Amino acid sequence: MKKIGILGSTGSIGTQALDLIYNNDQFKVLYLSAHSNFKLLAEQAIKFNVETICISDSKFLESLKNELKNHNIEILSGDQGINELSNRDSIDLMLNALVGYSGMLPTYNAVKCGINVALANKESLVAGGELIISELNKSKSQLFPVDSEHSAIWQCMVGEKNSEIKKLILTGSGGPFRELDFKKFSKIKKEDALKHPNWEMGSKITIDSATMMNKGFEVIEAFWLFNLPTKKIEIVIHPQSIIHSMVEFIDGSIKAQLGTPNMTIPINYAINYPNRNINNNFNFNFYDSKDLSFHKPDFNKFKCIKLAYESLNLGKSYPIVLNVANDLCVYAFLNDKISFIDIPNYIQDTLDKHIPQSVDNLDSIFNVIHKTTLDIKERIYK
Amino acid sequence: MKKIGILGSTGSIGTQALDLIYNNDQFKVLYLSAHSNFKLLAEQAIKFNVETICISDSKFLESLKNELKNHNIEILSGDQGINELSNRDSIDLMLNALVGYSGMLPTYNAVKCGINVALANKESLVAGGELIISELNKSKSQLFPVDSEHSAIWQCMVGEKNSEIKKLILTGSGGPFRELDFKKFSKIKKEDALKHPNWEMGSKITIDSATMMNKGFEVIEAFWLFNLPTKKIEIVIHPQSIIHSMVEFIDGSIKAQLGTPNMTIPINYAINYPNRNINNNFNFNFYDSKDLSFHKPDFNKFKCIKLAYESLNLGKSYPIVLNVANDLCVYAFLNDKISFIDIPNYIQDTLDKHIPQSVDNLDSIFNVIHKTTLDIKERIYK
Repeated sequence: MKKIGILGSTGSIGTQALDLIYNNDQFKVLYLSAHSNFKLLAEQAIKFNVETICISDSKFLESLKNELKNHNIEILSGDQGINELSNRDSIDLMLNALVGYSGMLPTYNAVKCGINVALANKESLVAGGELIISELNKSKSQLFPVDSEHSAIWQCMVGEKNSEIKKLILTGSGGPFRELDFKKFSKIKKEDALKHPNWEMGSKITIDSATMMNKGFEVIEAFWLFNLPTKKIEIVIHPQSIIHSMVEFIDGSIKAQLGTPNMTIPINYAINYPNRNINNNFNFNFYDSKDLSFHKPDFNKFKCIKLAYESLNLGKSYPIVLNVANDLCVYAFLNDKISFIDIPNYIQDTLDKHIPQSVDNLDSIFNVIHKTTLDIKERIYK
Repeated sequence: MKKIGILGSTGSIGTQALDLIYNNDQFKVLYLSAHSNFKLLAEQAIKFNVETICISDSKFLESLKNELKNHNIEILSGDQGINELSNRDSIDLMLNALVGYSGMLPTYNAVKCGINVALANKESLVAGGELIISELNKSKSQLFPVDSEHSAIWQCMVGEKNSEIKKLILTGSGGPFRELDFKKFSKIKKEDALKHPNWEMGSKITIDSATMMNKGFEVIEAFWLFNLPTKKIEIVIHPQSIIHSMVEFIDGSIKAQLGTPNMTIPINYAINYPNRNINNNFNFNFYDSKDLSFHKPDFNKFKCIKLAYESLNLGKSYPIVLNVANDLCVYAFLNDKISFIDIPNYIQDTLDKHIPQSVDNLDSIFNVIHKTTLDIKERIYK
């Protein structure tokens, strides 16, 4: 039996994971955490008979306790609660489905404890990559990517040697503006940017998909996950989102992982690895599928990809600045403070002005996050 | 260093393998064989400094000896020469690139000796599958498929478990008559059938591709190679021949192997396994590629596929009869004795009349081949 802890259990990834685990006697859920949805967290805690739960936003602690007053469940709260959970080595696998920078510390803790991490928290590698991978190399812990692109690469790499990779090919739909003339980018409205052709996602990541910054972040994650130089990580636009990513080997052979674009498949793979778990909900039908097409990404139109590659090549604190600046720019765009084409421009300015710093510990990472936040806020809201 | 012996070294697969091995100090070629091309065989023997060669057609023995009179190379001839070579356990890998039934015995011998076989001889499994796999299960030898479809499946299966396969998806171009109305099949001329859209091949296999019997044979080979029931082996028409085949797993994830349609890639993989060997001739360009499409195979139009599945389900001697009948029908078609649509009809008749026999030894297999040959010849040339 695999003992699992889930951080962010009430979000999209967390609830899908619990659906997969429910009635599966291969799993025992030891802990769950949520940010604020105490009602659902309490329901999950009872349903999965968990030992411990944590509510990150402490103002919901009393409400949560009230929901569970007749149950013998340990209840923690706040960042220190998450910190405590992620330091427990009583589990075999931690699913980190936290959103944002608060996900870095738990990944770091679990890796230090030698616990395997199914990683759905982007910031752990985009911002904390250097620190976490350096810790991983000293640990018996493994990182299992949860997002579809890295899961695809991971699946293609099973049984293969890293030294025999020619390149990774990250596929991306190209987002809603793939075919839009760049001249019209200045007129893009929030409503247009929030429409994604293939995947149902939250508004932040939908905008990242429209600017293609999400692909840039995936390049950074792939860099850390698969230990390859930037020049071996390519992006190919594949509007149908059926091929989730590919690996080309030194002998010219290419392996791809494909199927229905649904997050359940990579979540299921990450939590069950090294086994696969039956799921009959996804019988991909080739005959109903559209033809699969491939296009070159346009780095001039989607400047965010270029910025991501540049940040990765510059290294040190640059990817953190990229991430922080992007977060705040997308937020500003969603709040009608800046236009769509301003997003990469503000990020570029912030990167240009940045003085690189060493980021081999959490304090220095949070310091860069803090300073970049102040810097970009001043720029946007001046 | 890997010691290799190659049967059929002057044919298409053999020469491509030698091109890959040339100047590669990972390999030492111990023996080569050819059917009749003694000049090329002698050249290869000198170039690769081999210990032993064999010319199957003994009438070229003296000419071969003459070519090599100043070289200290052991020269064998005839079926007994091939038999002797394939019983040598001084090699690590035998590449069996023989054409036809004469390839069965060498595969059987090598498997009995515990030698790994890179298998390009179709008949070894289509006709000798039961015998050879039963011997393989008692041996430490492994079969490494050389054709592109089975190589694709094999590559997708590296690091995966057989028990986690939902199905194999063999892709096929559909041949030149994929879109032709069945009503026009009676007017198909030899010249039309000899045009294959994607692969350059010999005339026999090009006709097998036009009738789609080649896909039927591949289903039979996959059945033996991957130890799966017929119902888990599907065919999908993929006219661009970029995806060489796929594996769908129980969790709904699909893995595919793809790239330039060129036999060098699977040959290179088979002889280098478990390593991959650098080959920079095949940088597949997604941007120049046509869109990838998928279609359901039409079993009514391409009756040969249906006959292959039926023969496999009936088992015993039926797949041998299918293979022999097809060989002779294609030969008759190429010699203007029967029409294109007669090919499956003659095969069907022969299968219908066949009384199944046990085929657990080579004598009984050759007996079925002999009797079927007489039977179908009488039918066609009566």
